[in-house]
Amino acid sequence: MTLSHPGDPVRNGMRSAVSIVESSLARIGREDGALCAVTRLLSERALRQAREIDRAVLQGGDPGPLAGMPFGVKDLFDLEGMVTTAGSRILANASPARRDAVLVSRLVSAGAIPVATTNMDEFAYGFATDNAHFGLTRNPHDHDHLAGGSSGGSAAGVAAGYFPFALGSDTNGSIRVPASLCGVWGLRATQNRLPLDGAYPFVASLDTVGPFCARASDLRTLFEVLSAESLARVDPATLRLARLGGWFAENMTGEMERALGHFCEVLGIGQTITVADVAAARAAAFLISASEGGALHLDRLRHDASQYDPAVRDRLLAGALVPAPTVFRAHKMRRAFRTAMHAAFENADILVAPAVMGPAPRYDTPTVTIGGETVSARANLGHYTQPLTLAGFPVLALPLAESLAGEGLPLGLQLVARPGREDQLIALAERLEADGLARARLRED
Amino acid sequence: MTLSHPGDPVRNGMRSAVSIVESSLARIGREDGALCAVTRLLSERALRQAREIDRAVLQGGDPGPLAGMPFGVKDLFDLEGMVTTAGSRILANASPARRDAVLVSRLVSAGAIPVATTNMDEFAYGFATDNAHFGLTRNPHDHDHLAGGSSGGSAAGVAAGYFPFALGSDTNGSIRVPASLCGVWGLRATQNRLPLDGAYPFVASLDTVGPFCARASDLRTLFEVLSAESLARVDPATLRLARLGGWFAENMTGEMERALGHFCEVLGIGQTITVADVAAARAAAFLISASEGGALHLDRLRHDASQYDPAVRDRLLAGALVPAPTVFRAHKMRRAFRTAMHAAFENADILVAPAVMGPAPRYDTPTVTIGGETVSARANLGHYTQPLTLAGFPVLALPLAESLAGEGLPLGLQLVARPGREDQLIALAERLEADGLARARLRED
Repeated sequence: MTLSHPGDPVRNGMRSAVSIVESSLARIGREDGALCAVTRLLSERALRQAREIDRAVLQGGDPGPLAGMPFGVKDLFDLEGMVTTAGSRILANASPARRDAVLVSRLVSAGAIPVATTNMDEFAYGFATDNAHFGLTRNPHDHDHLAGGSSGGSAAGVAAGYFPFALGSDTNGSIRVPASLCGVWGLRATQNRLPLDGAYPFVASLDTVGPFCARASDLRTLFEVLSAESLARVDPATLRLARLGGWFAENMTGEMERALGHFCEVLGIGQTITVADVAAARAAAFLISASEGGALHLDRLRHDASQYDPAVRDRLLAGALVPAPTVFRAHKMRRAFRTAMHAAFENADILVAPAVMGPAPRYDTPTVTIGGETVSARANLGHYTQPLTLAGFPVLALPLAESLAGEGLPLGLQLVARPGREDQLIALAERLEADGLARARLRED
Repeated sequence: MTLSHPGDPVRNGMRSAVSIVESSLARIGREDGALCAVTRLLSERALRQAREIDRAVLQGGDPGPLAGMPFGVKDLFDLEGMVTTAGSRILANASPARRDAVLVSRLVSAGAIPVATTNMDEFAYGFATDNAHFGLTRNPHDHDHLAGGSSGGSAAGVAAGYFPFALGSDTNGSIRVPASLCGVWGLRATQNRLPLDGAYPFVASLDTVGPFCARASDLRTLFEVLSAESLARVDPATLRLARLGGWFAENMTGEMERALGHFCEVLGIGQTITVADVAAARAAAFLISASEGGALHLDRLRHDASQYDPAVRDRLLAGALVPAPTVFRAHKMRRAFRTAMHAAFENADILVAPAVMGPAPRYDTPTVTIGGETVSARANLGHYTQPLTLAGFPVLALPLAESLAGEGLPLGLQLVARPGREDQLIALAERLEADGLARARLRED
């Protein structure tokens, strides 16, 4: 079998890395004033690396399977010589990073080229990418709508065609929510599978990282590079699929309900599996996030609270006051929920759920409807992602193709697998993309 | 080598188990009105077991290495068919235990006979064994003085000659403090080495259990039965001893300072090792205890606070309000302190420290002097034991012989070993007892 890799055009000398990087930088420069997905360009570093790659190719070397692929980096991953802001002003005077974060370094070793840092909610605490210091990231498909967060700059940058992939982090849904609202692929890896070294922490008990990308066919190579492991080739026809019921079957908008129903019908998914105590699982994730986030920032909040984004500051302050017994209970709930999730996989390999209630809300009236009540969209965009966080299982956010989602804003689903089974998720994603059921929605040049 | 075991006289038919148990029960009945070390007699069960043992011996069977040894059980270990009170009134209507706690069951299988439950601070939260429901346990050597706690009934029962050993638990010093004040041996095992099954919990992160006993020469058999492991025979001459400095060399009374100095002189201990951040380690143990204790009792405190011992209730309520970030920091401190403790053993096998500041305080004016200030003895009796709790290393409390401690109330030291090295502690204890440097002080009939 001849394997193809996303970096092959550059490896084979068909395209130059410099031209790709120049085109990516130019596009960001041209379009990002309106979009606000990028916080800093890495032009000098990116062009230097691109020249080295092109030179290596000329000299008969192999610059790696991701040769010449530009990518965006959520601004909480260290980049050598730069200050990691984590979307804050308070870290602006911190020391520059002494080396790249491990994931960045693995990508660079495989030939990929970081071209920009991307916007995020301050300290990754939000679902909107509405940042008091760096601005609001717009949805590339309609600037009056949210891109989602907290990794919204990475998702929007991929959807806008700035770069074919980007790095994000997902504590409660920060990859899955913006991937779905922007209509791109997003993978929250199994907890602790991808190294967090050099990534600014938020909630040690829940933090995970992973990629966004424009093509499911790139996911395998990308994940192999990120994990430094090779993935088994799974036959997607052998995978038993089921739909998550209960919590995950309620509160969707009409268009999401129809799209999800259609998806299940096309794939012949008849089985529905219901997990108990999802509401409590989500509450536990909230409590663990608030208290660990609050703990992480407590010293600075005591002295420099005014430097924080007001919305984030208040969440962190409230979190720092959560009594310990409440958090102990949340962890107990977590153990129970993990057990329930393992049981849910007894007769299925992949569980399907909506990623968000519906398409991206407007930025100026961000609300959603839950249980018949209109509530703030921002906290509630994690309605379906946050409980799954608690289990630590890998989740792939997939963009439904227009044939299923309609011509409005994108709609995304979650595919959940057992811990460590990214191979199954990626095999299914490749098939769904090949069959035209799932496909990223990208702004063309 | 012919090994002797404490149960040999009964095994060999020299003494009957029934006569030993009858004598133990009679003594408790006669003396405990004044001492208040025992909360319930287990006469029926004890005599039935004693008769079975005697019958087995007559029939040529082996009832085990602890045959016919009566023992006391801190009233937080389950005993089949009885309610485990954990020193509280609030559990009085709980269901009776369906089986013995694992440690009780191991002892019984080895021929030992539980004869009484022993008094304790309510829910093990205290250093005084001053229980609002069951009374104050007196020091057997002087009834005007404290026995120490929270396992004070077990320690006092051994010192009073009720039984040759007893079970206790030690979260912050609850074996080591009363062992020292009553002048008996007490072993806090390596955390998680002895099973806690069937022991009412207090602080899951810190709880440990272990025995008190009257003779160091019984410790080996006792620990082998409790741990269900056999202990290596260590040559005590090979052990490198050092004294703990800093925190553990300050605030002793004059008599303790002299006794400890004399002990080190006799053993030729020249090396002093100082561990940093002991004050913070103790604070961390306080915070973890209060918050986990508070969490454990929170539901009942909401509805039945008036049923608690007032002193314990207020500690638990305060603990339930500790903010989570404070507890996260305590656990971070714990990791650092463990590392420091491991480093302290680089050139030593056993570290020597005082167990308490001096002899038992009076029960009516329980104060000690710390940093020149007179403070409550009760909370501060754990001054030297509580920081070591945080490391989870095994600690043996040894009773200094009168030749070192003088003729006043007993004085105790702590011997600390690396995790899992109870074999070293016990080998040294045997030698110290044989050499007359350490010896339990027992009330004779």
